Amino acid sequence: MKTATKTKQELIDIAETDMQKYFQDVELSARQKLALTCRILFDKGHDSGLAGQITCRSNQPNTFLTQRLGLGFDEISADNLIEVNHDLERLAGEGMPNPANRFHTWIYKEHPEVNCIIHTHPTYVAALSMLEVPLMISQMDTSALYNDCSFVANWPGVPVGNEEGILISQALGNNRAVLLAHHGQLVTGKTIEEACNLAILIERAAKLQLLAMAAGQIKPLPHDLAQEAHDWVSTEKRNNVNFAYYARQALKNHPNCI
Amino acid sequence: MKTATKTKQELIDIAETDMQKYFQDVELSARQKLALTCRILFDKGHDSGLAGQITCRSNQPNTFLTQRLGLGFDEISADNLIEVNHDLERLAGEGMPNPANRFHTWIYKEHPEVNCIIHTHPTYVAALSMLEVPLMISQMDTSALYNDCSFVANWPGVPVGNEEGILISQALGNNRAVLLAHHGQLVTGKTIEEACNLAILIERAAKLQLLAMAAGQIKPLPHDLAQEAHDWVSTEKRNNVNFAYYARQALKNHPNCI
Amino acid sequence: MKTATKTKQELIDIAETDMQKYFQDVELSARQKLALTCRILFDKGHDSGLAGQITCRSNQPNTFLTQRLGLGFDEISADNLIEVNHDLERLAGEGMPNPANRFHTWIYKEHPEVNCIIHTHPTYVAALSMLEVPLMISQMDTSALYNDCSFVANWPGVPVGNEEGILISQALGNNRAVLLAHHGQLVTGKTIEEACNLAILIERAAKLQLLAMAAGQIKPLPHDLAQEAHDWVSTEKRNNVNFAYYARQALKNHPNCI
Amino acid sequence: MKTATKTKQELIDIAETDMQKYFQDVELSARQKLALTCRILFDKGHDSGLAGQITCRSNQPNTFLTQRLGLGFDEISADNLIEVNHDLERLAGEGMPNPANRFHTWIYKEHPEVNCIIHTHPTYVAALSMLEVPLMISQMDTSALYNDCSFVANWPGVPVGNEEGILISQALGNNRAVLLAHHGQLVTGKTIEEACNLAILIERAAKLQLLAMAAGQIKPLPHDLAQEAHDWVSTEKRNNVNFAYYARQALKNHPNCI
Repeated sequence: MKTATKTKQELIDIAETDMQKYFQDVELSARQKLALTCRILFDKGHDSGLAGQITCRSNQPNTFLTQRLGLGFDEISADNLIEVNHDLERLAGEGMPNPANRFHTWIYKEHPEVNCIIHTHPTYVAALSMLEVPLMISQMDTSALYNDCSFVANWPGVPVGNEEGILISQALGNNRAVLLAHHGQLVTGKTIEEACNLAILIERAAKLQLLAMAAGQIKPLPHDLAQEAHDWVSTEKRNNVNFAYYARQALKNHPNCI
Repeated sequence: MKTATKTKQELIDIAETDMQKYFQDVELSARQKLALTCRILFDKGHDSGLAGQITCRSNQPNTFLTQRLGLGFDEISADNLIEVNHDLERLAGEGMPNPANRFHTWIYKEHPEVNCIIHTHPTYVAALSMLEVPLMISQMDTSALYNDCSFVANWPGVPVGNEEGILISQALGNNRAVLLAHHGQLVTGKTIEEACNLAILIERAAKLQLLAMAAGQIKPLPHDLAQEAHDWVSTEKRNNVNFAYYARQALKNHPNCI
Repeated sequence: MKTATKTKQELIDIAETDMQKYFQDVELSARQKLALTCRILFDKGHDSGLAGQITCRSNQPNTFLTQRLGLGFDEISADNLIEVNHDLERLAGEGMPNPANRFHTWIYKEHPEVNCIIHTHPTYVAALSMLEVPLMISQMDTSALYNDCSFVANWPGVPVGNEEGILISQALGNNRAVLLAHHGQLVTGKTIEEACNLAILIERAAKLQLLAMAAGQIKPLPHDLAQEAHDWVSTEKRNNVNFAYYARQALKNHPNCI
Repeated sequence: MKTATKTKQELIDIAETDMQKYFQDVELSARQKLALTCRILFDKGHDSGLAGQITCRSNQPNTFLTQRLGLGFDEISADNLIEVNHDLERLAGEGMPNPANRFHTWIYKEHPEVNCIIHTHPTYVAALSMLEVPLMISQMDTSALYNDCSFVANWPGVPVGNEEGILISQALGNNRAVLLAHHGQLVTGKTIEEACNLAILIERAAKLQLLAMAAGQIKPLPHDLAQEAHDWVSTEKRNNVNFAYYARQALKNHPNCI
């Protein structure tokens, strides 16, 4: 084993280089990625009736793609997404957006690096939210959310006003995710791929947390190793490779969505 | 953002107006809606063998549509529903009604505004019912049941007698739902759509409650905000839009039910 | 409502008479019923690899039908069942029986009224069995097992010897079911239909018990009402009507099993 | 009953002899078995995105078959497996191996009897791993892991370095499995069949443990009987018969995987 004497950092660097070499990114439009994200999340338990909104920035300033209110995530296709401005006025497509999208526009306004927002109320996040406790990351797979998830402990009610938009946008801060007590979750991404992966992970993290809390006492991760794991799994390439896999799964179950 | 200075109430009013404008109600008969409700609830975990009854008022006074005893919710179609009077005598259709329907007729007698009753024993409601604790609403999605669900702590036994009908009808009071200890749940609606949504929500609420109780201590919602959320999600239009979505899902899984 | 003055007992009697009148029993052979039971139980979570045995008496004294070792419950058909005697010697069919069937023959020997035995290790029964606590019936649907389920708290090891057969047969006593600590469950029936229903119910009861115990303290049922409910749901006709429903479901999922 | 006087050991011996006689082993290549194992484990909840690696020794010294990084377990087929050496250099096939395979090569180096390694992060193992408690075997079905599962309580971070390989290999010792705190599980086998069965069992054991811990206090198994059960279920023939069953199930769901 000639690599038996390599340091961990050398091996990490080799892995990163290999991933750049072996994985080409998939060619999909923002519309296609957003529609696939809706189907991926539906299959992974992010359905709670018609609740939840997914948006991404469109080509023009202050314009966004989102789903039409009244359709479930399992009904969203690239061609039924609608385009809205920051006042939630429809610019293209049919129907109306979810009026609770208002806090998305506040986040986009205050966080120029954010290009995609996913807000849902999946089962385990919803149950965890009733306890008014923060998300606890204590397992490697979910380390992308370690030290990267804010907590809004005070529920401001139905998030249809500007007040809630300002509150949630401020709570996000420099993190990529927010756990909203008595409500649900919100994740953001520089890319749709990043946001989609984080949405999958936050529901998985909430499930693991509830299962573990019911059975005993969760032990914390050592900070430095958790931060290292966070960074290891949070590269753009890994997000793209993960998303490509989930997209292939979604297309098997929902061949007509793009 | 020209809407950034609007108040929450102004934004709520705009949303309500837009929903009236954008959503037409679906044309379905009571028979079709009732059959779809059976399939919807089956897919959402409301099966417990042959237990549970779903009824709605028919066109004539003191007559009701219900399922035939011996068929599961996954077997109910618009054309195998039966019509009974308040003595549970069959007026049309084949077979016999569930003799436990008797408490439905008591509720219809005492609650003229109720047009649909759904009584089931889904898994999480059934488990919760063993603890003799009331339903706790602590998450936004289930706020339609906030302050709107009675609790019958004393199980009166098999509900086939008139005694149980009087007891449950009185317990309902001005609420739309009842949690029945050691038994199951009952929800009512002015419309089939409303009752169907509440039935979905009460099982979801019980699941969230059990998951949260197993992991920690549920924190209460602030009363005023919870009541606001209750009213926000309880409009007739929202019930219709939600039901239309669930009906589309059910028709994908059960194309022959109507 | 002319029935509003009838007593509960009168209404129960009417219901029983109506059920006799409206429900004809389905014509199926013992082989067909046993194969359907395997498929029904598979779909309801009674698979744990190749563990579990289902048997019924055959036409000849001391002979039994059972599955072939090595096939899962989802692979059992009327034509691959085998016939064995009380020494587990194969009389007809291919392959060998499960050597752990030995305690079945002891039960048949000591309990002449028993014509069908179902022994499985479904998930919730298995988890409950690790706590060394008896089954607690605290919800109406599972009342068929109220005061009707023995508890073997001391695990005797792999049940392949005659010792375990004698132990389990004695533990059964006058009950129809046994919870076996660190192991699984056993239910019996005068008919295959009865045993099949009890097997479904015991796993459901264990699931409800675990969910409720994790969240709080289970409250007991009043004895007289629980006994009344036990008897109400335990008639031969109800067992047959329930089984017929489950059989229709199984045939939809497994059309080739009989 | 002429066998009623036989001792338990005599009956165990008869069962073993019969199994040798009645069950022929299935003819499958290592590639086919490894691909089937990926599909079997996917169907049994061992998916957590692209995490997890499965390897087996190839024909040449210090060479191994493994999946291609970027494909999910549900996408692995006999013909897309790749062959690597102990430096994780690809010898045949397309793409790159998972860089976290490094600790597999350390285990193969130190444990010449090991021919297959399965490392995954299924849901219940992952949740259990957050509590920093060892696996508790308290139910007969999972006794193959009794006294046969090591515990690494200190999470060393992302296992991409040689340090983690040495640590995990030493922790394995003479056992066949390891529970890795804050991480997941690792099982080994002399054969692919053995490892596949143990992987299924360790996730089932973790699920049972969490369910039981949430509801009460797990009671230990008597040591001698647990060891007897461990040996009873751990024969090569039983592993092969179980694997053959799981393989038939996987081929129904994934007919193109081999």
